[in-house]
Amino acid sequence: MTQRASSSNPGRKRERAFGRVLQEVRKERGLSQEQLGFDSGYHRTYISFLERGKKSPSLSTIMDLAETLHLPASDFIRRVERTLEKN
Amino acid sequence: MTQRASSSNPGRKRERAFGRVLQEVRKERGLSQEQLGFDSGYHRTYISFLERGKKSPSLSTIMDLAETLHLPASDFIRRVERTLEKN
Repeated sequence: MTQRASSSNPGRKRERAFGRVLQEVRKERGLSQEQLGFDSGYHRTYISFLERGKKSPSLSTIMDLAETLHLPASDFIRRVERTLEKN
Repeated sequence: MTQRASSSNPGRKRERAFGRVLQEVRKERGLSQEQLGFDSGYHRTYISFLERGKKSPSLSTIMDLAETLHLPASDFIRRVERTLEKN
C-alpha cells in the first residue's frame, strides 16, 4: 500500500541529494557523524546510511535532523531541490 | 537502527500537520483522494492514512506528492512548519 506502482526515482537520486546536503550542513556545523547522531538521538550508523543515500528519511527524521542542525526543514529541503536541479 | 532512543514527537504532531497541509493543498487543486492517488502513483488508502497523520511519509513520498500538486516540496514543508507553529 505504501509502494508506488512505478518509480520516478531511479537510483535513489533524491536520497543521494539529501545525503549530500546532510553531510554539507553537518560539516558546516563542525559536527562529526557521531556527534550529530548523539545530538539528534539517532545512531551514527544511520547518519552514515543517510549521508550515502542508502535510506529514505521520514518526515520526522528530516525534521529531527534539521532541528539539531539549526536549519528549518524547509530550507534543508530547498537545498536538496537545488542539488537535484544541478545534477 | 532507524529508531530514536527517545521520541520528541508525541502524538505524531508532525504527521498530523503534514496531513492537514496535504488535505488543504489537495482541495485547493480540486482533487479527490482517489485522483491524487492515481496521479501520484499511490493508493487512495495511503493518501487517506497520510491525511489523518497515521503514517510518516518518506522524503520520496513527500517529493512525489508535492510534484503531483505542483508545489515545491520545500514550500510544502514550509506550510507544515507554519501549521506546527500555530498549534
